[in-house]
Amino acid sequence: MTGYDAVDVIRTKRDGGQLDDGQIDWIIEAYTRRDVPDEQMSALLMAIFLNGLDGDELARWTAAMIGSGVRMDLSSVPFPTVDKHSTGGVGDKITLPLAPLVAACGAAVPQLSGRGLGHTGGTLDKLESIPGWRAAVPYEDYLEQLRTVGAVVCAAGDELAPADKLLYALRDVTGTVESIPLIASSIMSKKIAEGAGALVLDVKVGSGAFMKDVARARTLAETMVGLGAAHGVHTVALLTAMDAPLGRTAGNALEVAEAVEVLAGGGPPDVIELTLALAREMLTAAGLHDVDPAAALADGRAMDRWRAMIAAQGGDPDAELPTAPESETVRAERAGTVTGVDAYAVGVAAWRLGAGRARKEDPVSAVAGVVVHVRPGDRVEAGAPLFDLHTDDAVRIPRAREVIATAVEYDGATQPLPLVIDRIGA
Amino acid sequence: MTGYDAVDVIRTKRDGGQLDDGQIDWIIEAYTRRDVPDEQMSALLMAIFLNGLDGDELARWTAAMIGSGVRMDLSSVPFPTVDKHSTGGVGDKITLPLAPLVAACGAAVPQLSGRGLGHTGGTLDKLESIPGWRAAVPYEDYLEQLRTVGAVVCAAGDELAPADKLLYALRDVTGTVESIPLIASSIMSKKIAEGAGALVLDVKVGSGAFMKDVARARTLAETMVGLGAAHGVHTVALLTAMDAPLGRTAGNALEVAEAVEVLAGGGPPDVIELTLALAREMLTAAGLHDVDPAAALADGRAMDRWRAMIAAQGGDPDAELPTAPESETVRAERAGTVTGVDAYAVGVAAWRLGAGRARKEDPVSAVAGVVVHVRPGDRVEAGAPLFDLHTDDAVRIPRAREVIATAVEYDGATQPLPLVIDRIGA
Repeated sequence: MTGYDAVDVIRTKRDGGQLDDGQIDWIIEAYTRRDVPDEQMSALLMAIFLNGLDGDELARWTAAMIGSGVRMDLSSVPFPTVDKHSTGGVGDKITLPLAPLVAACGAAVPQLSGRGLGHTGGTLDKLESIPGWRAAVPYEDYLEQLRTVGAVVCAAGDELAPADKLLYALRDVTGTVESIPLIASSIMSKKIAEGAGALVLDVKVGSGAFMKDVARARTLAETMVGLGAAHGVHTVALLTAMDAPLGRTAGNALEVAEAVEVLAGGGPPDVIELTLALAREMLTAAGLHDVDPAAALADGRAMDRWRAMIAAQGGDPDAELPTAPESETVRAERAGTVTGVDAYAVGVAAWRLGAGRARKEDPVSAVAGVVVHVRPGDRVEAGAPLFDLHTDDAVRIPRAREVIATAVEYDGATQPLPLVIDRIGA
Repeated sequence: MTGYDAVDVIRTKRDGGQLDDGQIDWIIEAYTRRDVPDEQMSALLMAIFLNGLDGDELARWTAAMIGSGVRMDLSSVPFPTVDKHSTGGVGDKITLPLAPLVAACGAAVPQLSGRGLGHTGGTLDKLESIPGWRAAVPYEDYLEQLRTVGAVVCAAGDELAPADKLLYALRDVTGTVESIPLIASSIMSKKIAEGAGALVLDVKVGSGAFMKDVARARTLAETMVGLGAAHGVHTVALLTAMDAPLGRTAGNALEVAEAVEVLAGGGPPDVIELTLALAREMLTAAGLHDVDPAAALADGRAMDRWRAMIAAQGGDPDAELPTAPESETVRAERAGTVTGVDAYAVGVAAWRLGAGRARKEDPVSAVAGVVVHVRPGDRVEAGAPLFDLHTDDAVRIPRAREVIATAVEYDGATQPLPLVIDRIGA
């Protein structure tokens, strides 16, 4: 007998009341051991979606989610630890150059990552396009890689916020995803459990992002920064543009190739700029105030760490990346000045070509995706290439072409968002 | 491929939108055949609880619930058909004298009834205290009993609004019970599917009722009257008092005995008055405008129909009713004028003594319950009997005594509600 009852908890939130600490601890714990069934939790999630959680409730809810598993101990790593989390965007391969770059500058990056779902890709899916690379890393190897290479990007184990795994899957099928307290607690429970001393959040804003407007993105960022601070994790957030795709590629192997270009000193200017902006935030958050990441990118130290990081997880950094057997180029039907490239349309096209999954058990294609030839501000002539569509299977092309056909805006009034819109945090 | 998706339906209602006919038909149908799982339906129910259903949505929702099963055909019954439904109250045994009384006056009463849950009793539980009486009646026997006796009170079969059975059980565990559209559609889907030509609703108001205030009860009544009309069932509602218990008993065999007193020309004045008020409404709704139910109660015709109705379902109307082996009298601790007898406290006491069930699979005691010796307006001396507590098991008495100890208000300002508060309908 615990004295708690799921219907009482549901009714409290349904009627606009505040859940007390005991109720929150109990329901997360009981749900994680499956004593509270999905139908009760989904009613509570909908009540939270519609009636919210206040600051105290959200802090406790997040703490209870962390407490459903273990908080990792990184004290044996002889560097300051700092991680980055992006809320997800089209072409967002920033983790790939960023983690080795920050490691090259003296901080360790312990990133336990997830798979992509929907129109934004997952970092593990991208890395798995590298021949031999493994997402699963045993705990001891993980610590050893942090100590020697300084960066690990791998799959989170079942002991990391198991309540979140269950809640995330339930929210996905019950229309309770787009709730700021539920999003914030989901992200922060995993990131805090990861054990890093500091955290930089890249909160995306725009058509290709979860958050379509700046105000909502700012609320989410402030909420997450507050949760980090409450758990002793120095947390900073950047609000960054996701109206147009990031860089020139969306797709798994395509994005790895672009990341390697950046590490080699080339690559698209927006990817370089955002990588450096996030690296500076991470290094500052880690207490490394005087380190210049631009130098580490320019002189090849970041590339060396990338090679070491890939090799430590079985990957061959010299292997050729797979390429698509089928492709088609989409061309401009008219001349004009490009004023917008809709990130959401590009993301959906990449997904339809096979780069993403509709359900979490679906496989993804390493080679599928979109190469983007135009950016806002470009002048194009009729017939100029706009996009290359890559896929394993040509039957996927027409539905991708359909969604991408209207992705380019010509001579419009759209003002692109600045790449870094705002910064939240101390 | 139906083209419908549960998450889309949930999101529509979550965001305050209106569900269209196709969405409603599909989700009720898919939930009934268990293709939509409980966790999706419970999220939708919470969204409905918080954002409501408008008139068009509710009409369609109710129609879809009726359409999940069969609507019964009573055209072979050579009398006008009319049923009564009470939203449930403490000591509400009115169906027992009412159904045979109305049958004696020339209308047929086809009542498919349920079990009690919580602090209000169920009509089937009451009748099952009569030795031999059976709640289950095969369909052909049911029609024959309506043709010959003119009244049946029996268990609803699985073909009657099966969606409601599933939804009712789900609402019970997900904190989504007290929603006017969900209550109205639950009651009316079953009552309309029953096939009666007219319906009189007894909507209870007060501490012992589901609806604690008159305004909410009136909204519920108006909603149900509208749903009846939309389905061609002439529907009228009385709002009636449930601040004090109805009559002098709460408990299964105790209430049957009280009903038989009423049929024999005696019984408590409030039970007689409400029975006649509802009988007049039912007869008028059935088109029998010139029949006086008081005469049929006085001259024994209603008692004859009772005996026939009980016998037709295997019961012995002459059998002695069971009595409790254990009892205790609760006495007044002071002298004073009784200004209130809390129906809810009496209902909970009867339930704790064994008269009701906490879960639908629990058995109920035939003999457990409360005899109420005082009514608002009575003058009592210290030591006068207030309540007799009856039970199979003396260990149940202390917890019943505890809740009933404060049920009587002396010399207070409480004004009892009038027995019939209002009437809704044409």
